[in-house]
Amino acid sequence: MPHLPPAIPGMPLAEVDTPALVVDLDAFERNLKKMAGFVAKAGVRLRPHAKTHKSPIIGLKQMQLGAVGLCCQKVSEAEAMVEGGIPDVYVSNEVMGARKLDRLAALGHQARVMVAVDNEAAVEALGTAARKAGVTLRVLVEIDVGANRCGVPPGAPAVALAERVGREKGLVFAGLQSYQGRAQHLRSLAERKEAIGQAIAWTADTVTALKKAGLECEVVGGAGTGTFEIEGASGVYNELQAGSYVFMDADYARNLKADGSRFDTFEHALFVYATIMSMPVAERAVIDAGLKAFTFESGMPEVTGLAGALYERPSDEHGGLNLAACNERPRLGDKILLIPPHCDPTVNLHDWYIGVRNMGTLSARVESVWPVAARGAVF
Amino acid sequence: MPHLPPAIPGMPLAEVDTPALVVDLDAFERNLKKMAGFVAKAGVRLRPHAKTHKSPIIGLKQMQLGAVGLCCQKVSEAEAMVEGGIPDVYVSNEVMGARKLDRLAALGHQARVMVAVDNEAAVEALGTAARKAGVTLRVLVEIDVGANRCGVPPGAPAVALAERVGREKGLVFAGLQSYQGRAQHLRSLAERKEAIGQAIAWTADTVTALKKAGLECEVVGGAGTGTFEIEGASGVYNELQAGSYVFMDADYARNLKADGSRFDTFEHALFVYATIMSMPVAERAVIDAGLKAFTFESGMPEVTGLAGALYERPSDEHGGLNLAACNERPRLGDKILLIPPHCDPTVNLHDWYIGVRNMGTLSARVESVWPVAARGAVF
Repeated sequence: MPHLPPAIPGMPLAEVDTPALVVDLDAFERNLKKMAGFVAKAGVRLRPHAKTHKSPIIGLKQMQLGAVGLCCQKVSEAEAMVEGGIPDVYVSNEVMGARKLDRLAALGHQARVMVAVDNEAAVEALGTAARKAGVTLRVLVEIDVGANRCGVPPGAPAVALAERVGREKGLVFAGLQSYQGRAQHLRSLAERKEAIGQAIAWTADTVTALKKAGLECEVVGGAGTGTFEIEGASGVYNELQAGSYVFMDADYARNLKADGSRFDTFEHALFVYATIMSMPVAERAVIDAGLKAFTFESGMPEVTGLAGALYERPSDEHGGLNLAACNERPRLGDKILLIPPHCDPTVNLHDWYIGVRNMGTLSARVESVWPVAARGAVF
Repeated sequence: MPHLPPAIPGMPLAEVDTPALVVDLDAFERNLKKMAGFVAKAGVRLRPHAKTHKSPIIGLKQMQLGAVGLCCQKVSEAEAMVEGGIPDVYVSNEVMGARKLDRLAALGHQARVMVAVDNEAAVEALGTAARKAGVTLRVLVEIDVGANRCGVPPGAPAVALAERVGREKGLVFAGLQSYQGRAQHLRSLAERKEAIGQAIAWTADTVTALKKAGLECEVVGGAGTGTFEIEGASGVYNELQAGSYVFMDADYARNLKADGSRFDTFEHALFVYATIMSMPVAERAVIDAGLKAFTFESGMPEVTGLAGALYERPSDEHGGLNLAACNERPRLGDKILLIPPHCDPTVNLHDWYIGVRNMGTLSARVESVWPVAARGAVF
C-alpha cells in the first residue's frame, strides 16, 4: 500500500483499469477559474477546502489562481498539504488532544498555521503547545450560526472566548469561523438565502461586539459551494471556504438556482470509471464499483452515457445497473463513467486521481496521475 | 501516504490517537477459534473472506487454525494477500478486462489461484490469459441462488458453462460458487433458513446435474456470517466463505437466533476509537469520527461505555452524540469506542489496525499495529 495506479499518462481513457477516480481536467480547470473570477469580482479572499480534494497538487493550482491558502479539517490533512508545498494552512475545526496539538504547533515552523476553537480548555491546551514549540498560532473563534454542530453562540460568548485567546501567550486572535453547513444543500435559493441571511446577521453582530471590545477580525471565514455567492456579497465575510466546486457532485447538482433550474454554476469534473462485469439478464447489469468505490449517504451515483440506466443495490464490490428504461443495451466489459453522490468521502476511498484531457471525445487520454495525498488522513 | 499509525505497541489504550481502528485481540482470537471449531465439527472447509479484513496477517492466523486459503473479491486484493504470504487465493467474483486477467494469471506463478465465472466470454478471456502466462487456473461456476446479483441460473445453464470451462485449455473446472448474499441479514432464523434452504436445493440439483454430465465439484462454496451454520450442516456445501465473523458489526448483531435473542455467536472485536472534540451544550457532544471513519449504509455506529448515548448526524469529519438519555455526562477530550455499523467498508477507510489486549480493563494496552494491507484494493 498504496496500490499501483490504474493508469499511466498517455493511455487512452478506454484502457484505464477500473474502478478508477477520473478527473475531467478541462471541466476541473474551468471550475477553478470560475471561482477565482467570482472572488476577484466580489473583493473577497478564497481559502478552498482541502477536505474535498486532499491534494497539494490541486491546492497549488488554486493558489496560482489567487487562493490565499487552504482549509483543512484534520491535523494530518494539514501535514500532507504542507509536505506538498502549501505555505498557509487553516485547520477549520476543533483539535483536541496533546499529541495532535504538538503536531499542529510543529507545523507552525514550516507554514503559516491557523486553527479554530470553541472552548476555553482548547485555548489553554493550544497555548501550551504553541509555547512549547516556540511558535505563534493564529486562532479563529468558531460561532454556531445555525449548523448546530460545533461553535459558541454568536455575540457575548464569542467575545469572551476571543478575549481568552488574546490573553494566551503563543496565540493571536485572528477572527471568526462562521460556517453554516446545514444551508449548503437546502434545495431552493430562497431557503439558502434565508439561512445564510441569519448567519450573516449573527456574524455581523459578533464582529461589531468584538470591535467594541477592541478586537479586530482579520478573517471572517465560512461559506460552501451551495452558498458562497451569498456570503461573498454580504460585506461581512471576507474569506470563502468552498471545496466541492472543483469537482461538483450529484448532490450539489440537485440544488436549484433562483429560476428553479439546476445549480450548474460548476461542471461535473469527477467520475468513477467502472466496468460491466456481469450481465445475468438483459435488463440488469453488474458493475465493479460498490461501497468501496463510492459512499452512499447522499443517494446513488448517476450513470452517464447510458440514458435511462439507474444505479441500484450497492454491495461491497458490486453495483447494480437497472437497464429497464434503457433503449441502448451495454455489453459485458463496457466501461462507464458515474458521477459520485458526494465527492469528499468518495475521493477519500481512492489512492489516485486519473486526469483525463478531452473527455467525451474519441481522443480522451490520460494526462496526469496524481496521488490523493491526504487520503485516510483522519487524525 | 500511508499515514503514520495512531499508536505504537506498548501504549495504553487511552493514549491512542483518534480516530483509530481498534481490534480487541482477545475477542478477535475467540471468534477465530469458535469458527475453526465449528467447521471442524461440521466436517467442512473454511476459506474466510479477506474482503472483510484485507490483511494477510489475519489471513495467516486463520490458516494456522485450519482455513484452507482465503477468498478475495478483487485481483488487487488477491495480490496483496499473496504478497503477504497466503499460498491459496480464490477471487470469488467475476473478473473482466485483459489487464486484470493477465495480473490474475501472473499470480498463478506464486500461489494456488481460483476464480469465479458466470459467462462464456469470461471463460474464453480467462483461458487466453492462463495460456499466455503458462499457468493453470481453477474455476468455479457462479450460480444465482436468490441473491439476484451475478451468476448463471442453477441446473442446465451451469452445466453448459462448466462444460465450456472444461474445454478451455489452461482452465480446470473445480466446482460451484453459490453464495446467497441477500439471506445474510434476514433478521429471523426462520427467514434465513427458508432462503438458504432454497439455495441448498438449487445447489444440490446443480451438483447432481453436473455429476450426470461427468463433472465433479471439488468445491461447493458459499455462506456468510449470517447463515454459515445452515450451509455447514447441509451436506451439499463443503467450503464456507464467511468473513465478518472475525470482527462482528452492529448490523450482524441485529440478526436473531432461534429463540429470538440477538445473534451473539461471535463477539464485537472491531471498534472505532474517537475523541469528544466539542461540547456546545450539555445534551450534545461532537466526536472526531464521521463519514471518513465509518460507512453508513447499514445505519449508525453504536456507542459503547456511555449508556443511552446515540450517534447521529454524521458529516465528513464530525459525528454527533445525542446525550439526552444519558445519566452520565462525558467530558471534552474523553475518548470512546464505537461499534461500526458495517465492518467491511469501514475497515477499508483505515490504514492501520491497532490491536489492544485486555480491553475493558485498566491494563488495556496496544499489542500490535498491523497495516490494512489491501485497503483501497478496488481493482
